[in-house]
Amino acid sequence: MPEIARRPENRYGNRPTMKDVAARAGVGLKTVSRVVNGEPGVTADTERRVQEAIEALGFRRNDSARVLRKGRTASIGLVLEDLADPFYGPLSRAVEEVARAHGALLFNGSSAEDPDREQELALALCARRVDGLVIIPAGGDHRYLEPEIRAGVATVFVDRPAGGIDADVVLSDNHGGARAGVAHLVAHGHRRIGFIGDMPRIHTAAERLRGYRTAMEDAGIPVEPSWTSLGATVPERVRRAAEEMLSGPAPVTAIFAGNNRVTVTVVRVLAELGRPVALVGFDDFELADLLRPGITVVAQDSGRLGRTAADRLFRRLDGALVAPERVELPTRLITRGSGELPPAG
Amino acid sequence: MPEIARRPENRYGNRPTMKDVAARAGVGLKTVSRVVNGEPGVTADTERRVQEAIEALGFRRNDSARVLRKGRTASIGLVLEDLADPFYGPLSRAVEEVARAHGALLFNGSSAEDPDREQELALALCARRVDGLVIIPAGGDHRYLEPEIRAGVATVFVDRPAGGIDADVVLSDNHGGARAGVAHLVAHGHRRIGFIGDMPRIHTAAERLRGYRTAMEDAGIPVEPSWTSLGATVPERVRRAAEEMLSGPAPVTAIFAGNNRVTVTVVRVLAELGRPVALVGFDDFELADLLRPGITVVAQDSGRLGRTAADRLFRRLDGALVAPERVELPTRLITRGSGELPPAG
Repeated sequence: MPEIARRPENRYGNRPTMKDVAARAGVGLKTVSRVVNGEPGVTADTERRVQEAIEALGFRRNDSARVLRKGRTASIGLVLEDLADPFYGPLSRAVEEVARAHGALLFNGSSAEDPDREQELALALCARRVDGLVIIPAGGDHRYLEPEIRAGVATVFVDRPAGGIDADVVLSDNHGGARAGVAHLVAHGHRRIGFIGDMPRIHTAAERLRGYRTAMEDAGIPVEPSWTSLGATVPERVRRAAEEMLSGPAPVTAIFAGNNRVTVTVVRVLAELGRPVALVGFDDFELADLLRPGITVVAQDSGRLGRTAADRLFRRLDGALVAPERVELPTRLITRGSGELPPAG
Repeated sequence: MPEIARRPENRYGNRPTMKDVAARAGVGLKTVSRVVNGEPGVTADTERRVQEAIEALGFRRNDSARVLRKGRTASIGLVLEDLADPFYGPLSRAVEEVARAHGALLFNGSSAEDPDREQELALALCARRVDGLVIIPAGGDHRYLEPEIRAGVATVFVDRPAGGIDADVVLSDNHGGARAGVAHLVAHGHRRIGFIGDMPRIHTAAERLRGYRTAMEDAGIPVEPSWTSLGATVPERVRRAAEEMLSGPAPVTAIFAGNNRVTVTVVRVLAELGRPVALVGFDDFELADLLRPGITVVAQDSGRLGRTAADRLFRRLDGALVAPERVELPTRLITRGSGELPPAG
């Protein structure tokens, strides 16, 4: 297939081909192929001549063509929400390390929380014949992937489940984690507890809200409508929601923040408020321990989520797995001060 | 090329081919090809029959084969130091957005600050025929890329320059930024100022150390050997370096931290110290303003670095650029309190 590199429209027109190597070494094409692919049947002297020609011409094997012929591309795709969100850094790196251990390269892209962009990206990766996909879904309907999965693209969902199809998924215990975090605030004397989360169509946001409601029900506290606010995690929206809960005649005395983007903005609002309000956030983040007070969090292990998902992907590519499975990883409450403040007043 | 999908060893053996679509629609292969590629010469009725067959079979065009035939793969590679380092998040996302605007997908990988791993990754991406590479180099010798660049792989270095070859590079003004940061400490009365940086073979670490030395020379302060420490940015090493500078009969009264990984550890050491020490860090980081005192930093714009590098890459792919250029972006001193503390004692 390297001969396509000779077509005039080809940017790689200058790349030496196996034919060039054969001509320079004065051997046949099959002999060059044997040397390049490490196959037997070549004398030491001939191999040396071929290697010298390869060196002199700067010949490099074209893996794209080779892997296409073999039907595997040794590449996988990772579709996440935002390459710039620090939560996904350790997850991406973990997926990369597993891929690397399997000799595969990683495509990486952001859905920007837009279901259309997720689909466009996932299908573009399939059209490029990735062997598998790790997807943090933005959308709730993944039937568009059915033909790809049937055709052999291994697919594992992580952080949030797939919608409308039966597929592997690796999640944190979002309900249990939020329930434990809110119960912690209740145990420190709070009853008026606010919840600020991501958009309700996002699985993790809905599950964490459910965990909040379970903990409040466990404690026999009826939740007032003004105590919960779900929406985009942009600072303006979160700030408005926090300020509303914290004002009026009966403000909340504690806030449970639904993810690290929310927590960071709530910390800013509380720093300006001038009276102590308890705070527990879902997701750990760097420097949470150095703020005053330190921020109590429900930590999930983003690296372990990525590693577990990628391991499943490659086991599936090896043909080792049959039925899709749901794997749920535990969360961990880390107390640092902000979640142990008593109710003000 | 889709017919290779029929070979028995192929994992994608179940994918419907253009031949299957042609058979089902009762038309010739060329007609299917015209419909798939949006070419003229097909009646509306025939196009509808072909589209129905495509839909029914779940046929998808194989972009890998198509782009190989055209000599462009519409993919680029980004080699950075660590996918998990928050500094690279906005840079990666910016490169992705530029690639997306050009219809290209992004391969992403970490060198883990290991020159061999950088080379292995860059060459693996070239072997996969990426159209271009954006590289944050770990190594100092990039002659291994010469055959690839000659063969048409557009290559732009970012954050640190290439070694041994003439290539585009987009940098921050590391020397000027560090010089301004250290001058700021001098202006607040400090003379015994420490510098803790990354490994000296890393361009940014060396340039920032040079900026520190220039500022000290500007102020007529001879630098004592015990005031500078370069090495890996793992917390243990940085902690030891900081503790050494801060102990003894004549400790430093201020520290300039060479990057965000160093700053975070120095902040932890100072929080335990119990006496005020001034701190300026290179690189801004989330929550730097919420620590007490807020952390004064020399900020570089990591998103702009990525965007500028990716823009150059695609202009080069369009044939718009000739000679390699060095682009230097300014840094910005942000004062928040830690850099304005007076010398203790």
